[in-house]
Amino acid sequence: MSAKFYGYKGEASKALEEAGAEVEDHIRVTKDGAIYEGILIPRSEHGDDKHLIIKLRSGYNIGIRITPSTKIEKIGSKTRLAFNPPPPPEQKLGLPKVSILSTGGTIASRVDYRTGAVRPAISANDLYSIIPELSDIAVIDAEIVFSLFSEDLTPSHWSKIAEIAAERIRDGADGVVITHGTDTMAYTAAALSFALQNLPVPVILVGAQRSEDRPSSDAATNLIGAVLTAAKASFAEVAVAMHETISDESLVLHRGTKVRKCHTSRRDAFKSINASPIARITDGHITLLTDDYSRRDPNRELAVKLKFDEKVTLIKFYPGIYSGVFDWLVRDYKGIVIEGTGLGHVSRRWFQSIQKAVERDIIVAMTSQCIWGRVNMNVYENGRDLLALGVIPLGDMLPETATVKLMWALGQTEDVEEAKNLLKTNIAHEISERTINM
Amino acid sequence: MSAKFYGYKGEASKALEEAGAEVEDHIRVTKDGAIYEGILIPRSEHGDDKHLIIKLRSGYNIGIRITPSTKIEKIGSKTRLAFNPPPPPEQKLGLPKVSILSTGGTIASRVDYRTGAVRPAISANDLYSIIPELSDIAVIDAEIVFSLFSEDLTPSHWSKIAEIAAERIRDGADGVVITHGTDTMAYTAAALSFALQNLPVPVILVGAQRSEDRPSSDAATNLIGAVLTAAKASFAEVAVAMHETISDESLVLHRGTKVRKCHTSRRDAFKSINASPIARITDGHITLLTDDYSRRDPNRELAVKLKFDEKVTLIKFYPGIYSGVFDWLVRDYKGIVIEGTGLGHVSRRWFQSIQKAVERDIIVAMTSQCIWGRVNMNVYENGRDLLALGVIPLGDMLPETATVKLMWALGQTEDVEEAKNLLKTNIAHEISERTINM
Repeated sequence: MSAKFYGYKGEASKALEEAGAEVEDHIRVTKDGAIYEGILIPRSEHGDDKHLIIKLRSGYNIGIRITPSTKIEKIGSKTRLAFNPPPPPEQKLGLPKVSILSTGGTIASRVDYRTGAVRPAISANDLYSIIPELSDIAVIDAEIVFSLFSEDLTPSHWSKIAEIAAERIRDGADGVVITHGTDTMAYTAAALSFALQNLPVPVILVGAQRSEDRPSSDAATNLIGAVLTAAKASFAEVAVAMHETISDESLVLHRGTKVRKCHTSRRDAFKSINASPIARITDGHITLLTDDYSRRDPNRELAVKLKFDEKVTLIKFYPGIYSGVFDWLVRDYKGIVIEGTGLGHVSRRWFQSIQKAVERDIIVAMTSQCIWGRVNMNVYENGRDLLALGVIPLGDMLPETATVKLMWALGQTEDVEEAKNLLKTNIAHEISERTINM
Repeated sequence: MSAKFYGYKGEASKALEEAGAEVEDHIRVTKDGAIYEGILIPRSEHGDDKHLIIKLRSGYNIGIRITPSTKIEKIGSKTRLAFNPPPPPEQKLGLPKVSILSTGGTIASRVDYRTGAVRPAISANDLYSIIPELSDIAVIDAEIVFSLFSEDLTPSHWSKIAEIAAERIRDGADGVVITHGTDTMAYTAAALSFALQNLPVPVILVGAQRSEDRPSSDAATNLIGAVLTAAKASFAEVAVAMHETISDESLVLHRGTKVRKCHTSRRDAFKSINASPIARITDGHITLLTDDYSRRDPNRELAVKLKFDEKVTLIKFYPGIYSGVFDWLVRDYKGIVIEGTGLGHVSRRWFQSIQKAVERDIIVAMTSQCIWGRVNMNVYENGRDLLALGVIPLGDMLPETATVKLMWALGQTEDVEEAKNLLKTNIAHEISERTINM
């Protein structure tokens, strides 16, 4: 497939060829009396051969079906140079050093997103140019670790991010910021909370729900807040920095093990579950919201525990779920996290299958699909029976955090009892002493 | 196993036999200077042989380990008669007729729960005795359909409940109340929303988060609200009646397709997601919160569509999930609901496997694990590619509702395209026109 017409085929590539237009060119399309101007963006391999996709000045993409009367004109060449950032401000000496690791996602999409293709190209200069406020907060060192949608990340990516973050901290960074797609940012935050223990400085994940080219973008505000926190916060934990409400006026720092993406599109999609956020940022000031945190201490020795074992599965219970599903799972997994109902229940029809799994030394742990609240398996008979079968109740740990933690626990040891003990031990505030707002 | 010592074995049953005490007897246990009095309750089959479980007057159960110095005395015979309800008030003529179907769960546990065993025994007289307010609202006809923890219900139970509710409506009930365990009440509510279409009168599900024997019980308040709604509400839909906040002052009626249990233990655990509740009850008055509802109309002809096909599975995506998981599922399922990330994404590593499933005429539908918001698969490349593969986006439908609906759709027709059309058609407000509170 020609790179000039990336993703375009058949009729569409023929029409483009005739117009002398290529992907990334600025084009004008006239059809049925309407005129559309924008940048021709690449198509996915699954697209049809009848539509062009252009990115309008508004930032939105539209598809235009090519008909015999559709006219295509090239009005500008490859637009890669059309974005001329102002020269970056000078770096100020004496400021804290913050290392930014870019992993992809919407927040990284600004710099080279004009075409609709996600090709983050982040450098410290790019960042200072786009967000000059950053140069008043910290001296930044920025690097691309991956350029991936976060749903494409796997546990091995978590290990890589943790490894590089640890290097930057050992090299003297006063804090690390990780830019990340929001879809699985909470999973990565949990993973880093277990992989990076005894942190001397903060590690802050940050994303954006709306890309920089939209007026409602939260990218700059979130990144400024994340850098501020990495540079200056008095706590040294893994946290997620995102909008507190839909307004730009405040951000909150959610603890890495207690945070969840709870809305598909709102800027305040991230919520702390069964816990208070660690801190709030308003007007450039960080206010702590809890006194139960680990303090920043550059002399503390970081403990790095990178390994995750993917032989763990998360299974959500629902009425009618096949009662033999565990019999399948025991063949391939070493650990199973159940998202049970209510206080931590599943149908009695599962019991026999669970018993077999436990007898085979598979770790079976219980969380609740309610999300809020905590598992308590002593209240009802089904819960008590599950405990008797050897199912491990995980208190108010989120199902997602529990899955990540079990992968991590099984990555640390071959010994099943030891892994169970790790799972039950509160390592990074993943289990609250009691549920707040009860 | 002797019924006298139900669930007790070994040492425990021997000690009970020596004391001449049986399950349901009132006993006194003296051990290490402490005295415990209560009702001996049955043990589960998985219990050990060393503990007695008694239900204290407080309503809580405790386990007491038998030691050589433990003394057991029987102080009262089978306590079935110890509960002497006051005589029921007289039924008032001219009131609406409400049919109560009991399926089990905490709300049903009052009448015969003194022993800790869940053996709901509901009659209209029992109910009037316990909650005399009911006799001012409606003439009640009450029956036990099942006595099950709701996590033990399956789609065939949904069909049974729908069938009996339809009979009562055809027999002239002005409304139906279904008492239900809270764990899977939202799934049943969704199921009834699809199985009972064109309702002439309301069908109200109700549960309790705290059993009647606890001071904080919500059982009576919720049941009164549910009966009031069934008897008098101007809407005729399937709804769930539960506390609006932790106070007893108001209840809300959640639409059956938009409701979710969002807390393990709070009385206001149930929330309407991406939708307003239909109505609020305060001081015995029902206030409608939306004008988009189906009005009560006794002449409307009920359409009953009872069948559910269990060959549907719900699978929650997480980083590191085995990319071949779909290859397993296609062997056993006709429909797969994905709880994807964010706007409706999964890793590209799943794409090949999804393609194969679609090619085999398996229905693959997308919802979001965010819970709030709506799937929009046109924004990012992974979403667009999933659409091109044939994945069906389900807007703001809850993953749980989507699973129930796909079971129902496949229960209605053998034709895959027809089932897809049913899945995409808004039948019971399961898809909102747009998300509120955006």
